[in-house]
Amino acid sequence: MKISASIVTIGDEILIGQIVDTNSAMVSRRLGEIGVKTADIISIPDDREQIITRLCEELTRNEIVISTGGLGPTKDDITKEALASLFGSKGYVRHEGQEEEVRRFLHSRGLDVLDINLAQADVPVGCDVIVNHRGTAPIMVFRFDRERFGHPAVLYAMPGVPYETEAALDDVMADICNHFRTESISHSSIMVYGLAESALAKLIEPWETSLPADMHLAYLPNTLMGVRLRLSVYGGEKNEAHARMDTEIRKLEKILGNRIYSLNDEGLEKVVGRLLKDNGFTLSAAESCTGGEIAHLVTSVSGASEYFIGSVTSYSPEVKKNLLGVKAETIEEKGIVSSEVAQAMAEGVRSLLKTDFAVATTGWADAYGDSHEPAGTVWIGVSGPLGTRAERYNYKNDRKRNIERFSASALDFLRRYIIEYLNK
Amino acid sequence: MKISASIVTIGDEILIGQIVDTNSAMVSRRLGEIGVKTADIISIPDDREQIITRLCEELTRNEIVISTGGLGPTKDDITKEALASLFGSKGYVRHEGQEEEVRRFLHSRGLDVLDINLAQADVPVGCDVIVNHRGTAPIMVFRFDRERFGHPAVLYAMPGVPYETEAALDDVMADICNHFRTESISHSSIMVYGLAESALAKLIEPWETSLPADMHLAYLPNTLMGVRLRLSVYGGEKNEAHARMDTEIRKLEKILGNRIYSLNDEGLEKVVGRLLKDNGFTLSAAESCTGGEIAHLVTSVSGASEYFIGSVTSYSPEVKKNLLGVKAETIEEKGIVSSEVAQAMAEGVRSLLKTDFAVATTGWADAYGDSHEPAGTVWIGVSGPLGTRAERYNYKNDRKRNIERFSASALDFLRRYIIEYLNK
Repeated sequence: MKISASIVTIGDEILIGQIVDTNSAMVSRRLGEIGVKTADIISIPDDREQIITRLCEELTRNEIVISTGGLGPTKDDITKEALASLFGSKGYVRHEGQEEEVRRFLHSRGLDVLDINLAQADVPVGCDVIVNHRGTAPIMVFRFDRERFGHPAVLYAMPGVPYETEAALDDVMADICNHFRTESISHSSIMVYGLAESALAKLIEPWETSLPADMHLAYLPNTLMGVRLRLSVYGGEKNEAHARMDTEIRKLEKILGNRIYSLNDEGLEKVVGRLLKDNGFTLSAAESCTGGEIAHLVTSVSGASEYFIGSVTSYSPEVKKNLLGVKAETIEEKGIVSSEVAQAMAEGVRSLLKTDFAVATTGWADAYGDSHEPAGTVWIGVSGPLGTRAERYNYKNDRKRNIERFSASALDFLRRYIIEYLNK
Repeated sequence: MKISASIVTIGDEILIGQIVDTNSAMVSRRLGEIGVKTADIISIPDDREQIITRLCEELTRNEIVISTGGLGPTKDDITKEALASLFGSKGYVRHEGQEEEVRRFLHSRGLDVLDINLAQADVPVGCDVIVNHRGTAPIMVFRFDRERFGHPAVLYAMPGVPYETEAALDDVMADICNHFRTESISHSSIMVYGLAESALAKLIEPWETSLPADMHLAYLPNTLMGVRLRLSVYGGEKNEAHARMDTEIRKLEKILGNRIYSLNDEGLEKVVGRLLKDNGFTLSAAESCTGGEIAHLVTSVSGASEYFIGSVTSYSPEVKKNLLGVKAETIEEKGIVSSEVAQAMAEGVRSLLKTDFAVATTGWADAYGDSHEPAGTVWIGVSGPLGTRAERYNYKNDRKRNIERFSASALDFLRRYIIEYLNK
């Protein structure tokens, strides 16, 4: 049986653009893992009629509907009442397990237990409950008779706070697996850095054309990650599908070499982290234009303290000179954004923090630029046992994206440097 | 005339959860500014039939449909063909203005001009074109006769890369304003830090209850921003609506005092940045558990170099001792996560980088913790002309969120400190 799902996010805040919906991606990823295809994702307002109408539409089209949002403790929430009406519930009942969680949750934060908090544990009569251990609103499970929508249909109404949604998804996925026989979807990811989407497409066109008919390729460019190539096979046996995709990936590796940095969806910071950790190396960073983003990316990986010693954000030239030992003449003659300054920064922080490797950035993320280099330019220095090197990149003038691009380029440069050293 | 819009994002990558849809929030925010209400947001797969069916549904329900995605240079895109079919176009025609942009765009990056790039400038016969100056795929504008959907309807098909979508939205909004008479929606934001959503709701309940019937309040909690309160008035004259909301906000300020940090949607990093810049103050940071995130947030603001001198990420205890001058005994006796270490770090970096103010963090973002403090705890130090102070916060055990919470709490502590100093 081919099972499809719809994800429905409820809340005016999404429709007026005040928040970005990150829940749907999380939910659909989890659905994919258990072989449920996400047919669509819709966002609708905090409006009783809309909630009822659109949920009915989606329950007609799909066996599973997962809604998130519209269940907070504050007054602007009308979702629960709409759900009760849709399900035909006569009144509400307090769920003891969730009430206990509400009290525990508030006590642990030293907050008073208010009536509006306890009311969160009230659910429409007849629905099942999955307890929310990270928040106060329970997950409500509405199981509809086959007659209602022409097929078995289940609606999971989840709270909208991503941290709470995430934790409850294990239970929701287990419930789906218990109630439906799901079909497999197999995906493989090939992470590529250093090639624009169209250049990559041109380069691998012969390979792509030769792929088996049931294997689908997609290109997903991302500032921090480069281009993610996604290979998919729908249906069939999962192990066999992966073995067939692996064969194709081996061929692709021959074409792309070390442009491929990961085959398991990991970002550059994780790949670099593992290279360092597995070999007992340490790292430091000196950041100018990237302003802390490289350190932030590196330390976003749990366990980074095993290899990341620290960094200096040298936003002012004085810090470059006084703390990192960059010579005033170098800055004067070569420009603050130059190969020489990037290399001196990398050497400076490597010696200051006594690490095996160091990476440094100096660039113009936006409107500035000078007589030496235009806006959008970064010089990246890497220092380590192979000596000190620098690479230059030039992007469009866009501050936010450039901070990310510069940081990703720096991590990729560092990755290639470490691999070269290991292969020596 | 009340105009509504639907935003349709096209692409399997969204439905399988490999990317988060950030475009829709951006588009709906812009629509709100010109008085167009976003009725729903839907994400659908790269599937010809789905594209045609769902776009027709939305064009029936709304005057405006804005689609993003499905228009990249690579093979997995079938959107353009579906659009041509939906519009009844006989064939394609190359748009010269866009072709020029494609050539210019690729040349400026030193890339070869490939046929698949040039084909991006081909559009279905009969559609209007808004040139994409940041990428290769043009914005296609399909204007439907009133007969087709029972009302005037326009479909704007935009590329999916957020950087490109963003740039083209000016032209799209101008086109909408030229073709429709739009009605006003007025929003005000009140940014609050340091109170949980339910505690805030309890505190301001009497005020909320007394709001005029046509004024709507929503609570939007966010890790980095605290709670954003959004006040809305639909319809009516915009200046008058804002004057009435301002009166209510004055009352709210009496209740919340300096918990309110902004009335214009700005994050803590912008507010702190302006406080520093307007008063000619400088700032440095010493980060342990936040690992560069504070520096990253501060430098994400354009012009930060006017007040941000630099920072030290002291991930290892050695860096705290050797570079920031934290005494080994202090760490030994009080614990690495302690008021004393946080204060010593703030003083250390303030003196090292010679700044007016300094902020420092030391904490356990995740599973570690020690005999002194549990996981989820941070000590924040702030040093400046009022002396050195520390505050302690404890959150749940969640690494990624804690790095953000710790950083936001640090910026808020710094903000309150600077304001106290200015008010002396």
